[in-house]
Amino acid sequence: MRQIAIMGFGTIGSGVFDVVNTNREILRKNLGEEIQIKHVLDLRDFPGHPVQAVLTHDVNVILEDPEVDVVVETMGGLEPAFTFVRRALEAGKCVATSNKELVAQHGTELLRVARENSVNFFFGASVGGGIPIIRPLLRSLCADDVEEITGILNGTTNYILTKMAQEGSSFEDALREAQDNGFAERKPEADVEGFDACRKIAILSSLMLGRRVDFADIPTEGITGITKEDFRYAAKLGWSIKLLASSRKENGHVYAMVAPGLVKPGHPLFAVCDVFNAIMVHGNMVDDVMFYGRGAGSHATASAVTADILCALRFRHQNVYAGWDAEKQALSDVGSWEKQFLVRAAGDASREEELARAFGQGILVDAGVDGEIGYLTPVISEEKFAEASAALGGVRGRIRVQA
Amino acid sequence: MRQIAIMGFGTIGSGVFDVVNTNREILRKNLGEEIQIKHVLDLRDFPGHPVQAVLTHDVNVILEDPEVDVVVETMGGLEPAFTFVRRALEAGKCVATSNKELVAQHGTELLRVARENSVNFFFGASVGGGIPIIRPLLRSLCADDVEEITGILNGTTNYILTKMAQEGSSFEDALREAQDNGFAERKPEADVEGFDACRKIAILSSLMLGRRVDFADIPTEGITGITKEDFRYAAKLGWSIKLLASSRKENGHVYAMVAPGLVKPGHPLFAVCDVFNAIMVHGNMVDDVMFYGRGAGSHATASAVTADILCALRFRHQNVYAGWDAEKQALSDVGSWEKQFLVRAAGDASREEELARAFGQGILVDAGVDGEIGYLTPVISEEKFAEASAALGGVRGRIRVQA
Repeated sequence: MRQIAIMGFGTIGSGVFDVVNTNREILRKNLGEEIQIKHVLDLRDFPGHPVQAVLTHDVNVILEDPEVDVVVETMGGLEPAFTFVRRALEAGKCVATSNKELVAQHGTELLRVARENSVNFFFGASVGGGIPIIRPLLRSLCADDVEEITGILNGTTNYILTKMAQEGSSFEDALREAQDNGFAERKPEADVEGFDACRKIAILSSLMLGRRVDFADIPTEGITGITKEDFRYAAKLGWSIKLLASSRKENGHVYAMVAPGLVKPGHPLFAVCDVFNAIMVHGNMVDDVMFYGRGAGSHATASAVTADILCALRFRHQNVYAGWDAEKQALSDVGSWEKQFLVRAAGDASREEELARAFGQGILVDAGVDGEIGYLTPVISEEKFAEASAALGGVRGRIRVQA
Repeated sequence: MRQIAIMGFGTIGSGVFDVVNTNREILRKNLGEEIQIKHVLDLRDFPGHPVQAVLTHDVNVILEDPEVDVVVETMGGLEPAFTFVRRALEAGKCVATSNKELVAQHGTELLRVARENSVNFFFGASVGGGIPIIRPLLRSLCADDVEEITGILNGTTNYILTKMAQEGSSFEDALREAQDNGFAERKPEADVEGFDACRKIAILSSLMLGRRVDFADIPTEGITGITKEDFRYAAKLGWSIKLLASSRKENGHVYAMVAPGLVKPGHPLFAVCDVFNAIMVHGNMVDDVMFYGRGAGSHATASAVTADILCALRFRHQNVYAGWDAEKQALSDVGSWEKQFLVRAAGDASREEELARAFGQGILVDAGVDGEIGYLTPVISEEKFAEASAALGGVRGRIRVQA
């Protein structure tokens, strides 16, 4: 019999409670021992709920209990989660967390503290909810030089973009519908401005590069500027628009960015719709592989947390997770990153030559609808694109094209 | 410095040679030590190739070398691969193999021998080539009750079906094109009759159920009976036709089958085309997750083998892979498995009522082209379908619909 504790009985913490209880027999068979939830920490009480019997309001009950081998952190936010997790590791307990903010901000230090105490800090649920991605990246794609990771890492924005594509809705209407259906928060900024995806790609980038990537260094653009007109051009091209979080080694540079992107039908992320997430990983040997599933939700995310609990119990006094080095990975200025752009400019077909002179010879996608012209540039650097746009006196919009 | 040996310098063995040499620095960083290929076993010589310096024709050179920690088996076939692998495990060496025949036929025994010798028998490359699936199933989805695995597990047949769908080719023409392009063998039976997919789903089923599944128990149907007409109905419905290898727990039954299936647009396997493979796993907590990539090829498959080498070196004297029990899992007769069927029968629209009486009220897909009628049955058992077909005096064809 192995004892664990859960800190935070919200959506994911209660999901872990359910998974451990519902799949008790499966966990016992996998581990060879039974798992018991001995304590659950929360500020609130839950009268009538089975959790009440193991509820505590004092974190020290958990930290000072020598029988607790693994602590699950599902509180969210930075504090007191960070302090509690660090103390748990220092007390010789393994920690499994779903908290991407915590991992993106303090992962390097927590990995170090875990190493120093011969325990593990696991965060498989911090990216992609229930989709296996972090362990496969570390354990199954470890023979590859991983050159690119590009993901649809936020379900809320993918739901909104899917509605806009399928129903021709405006961003505002699609956001409202997502909020009404419980797929978007009343304060949606973390999702729609790309901040959530940014933290997740920072974690994946750190794993891909083996060095700490600071999420604050990653240029991040959300989907609030995406319009019906963008989708009109996308439909004409037969492409989809996704919020892509991407990290890529190219010509000696390391780039990372979060921004909407046009995805072509042959790409594995093309058809990933609604609240689903997917992550494409390109290795120099394995080529493209892709992982797909529910990127959020109580039970899906709890499934990944509970897999980490099993691994933590299996390697109780053996640090097995390299993670990444404390040394910071410098990211190249994205100005030199070369891409194709779909640009929207006021005017009609008569402007085609002018746009070709500014951006280089490209392809006219459509002209004359809504008094504007849609033009696909050749592959040019972000910097050259910005200069050309400025020289034209600005453009109405632009979306990058995923190679 | 850790020493390994490779048995069999064919497509995959030479791929492992390349991966270990090309990604030497990455492997060293991951493992903390360098990996050296000390011996390569093959009947042939390779004059002028760097492998010649480490080539041996005698397996005992490998088995009796105490410096060799891991043996890679990429010979293919059952013998002498089985004898050599068992002897390597008995000699206290870990084994990593890409040989699905070996794993499907002798995996249970080799897992036991590995356990008894405190070493590991790894076979991550035996299903899905470079796609991480076996380790994620064992290590990331281990908190779930996995209720279904359905995969496109054979690249050759998927390439042929894609050509038939896109170009309206007959099976024979598409097969010839695949052979000319090197995507199908001159003797294509193992692929087109479904035998290859059958062994792979037997391995995945054994892992899903934790008990030995005998591939000979799995009803297997290939794609040789798929016609242009089938694709005409599929196009009308907006569905795709894939060779699906499937294993499912349902109503107390355990079913497994390999057969062509109609896949609807919302399903994660719908758009998996050309030589790509993909595996959908349904867990009771995580819901649907999907893994996608190149299911074959020298470097992709070698990537998975080399990941296993790293894991084997990390856990050199510690058996970490449960795999499955020796006890055999009985599979239910598929007669009770309930599905929807697309049935093709001679005649015109006037037969609709007759088909409805035989199969139950369904949907008329099309009638009167090529003197036949396409009818979508309700969900009925395989047994009832067979009885109804017989009562009608036989039908021209039928394809199951993936739920």
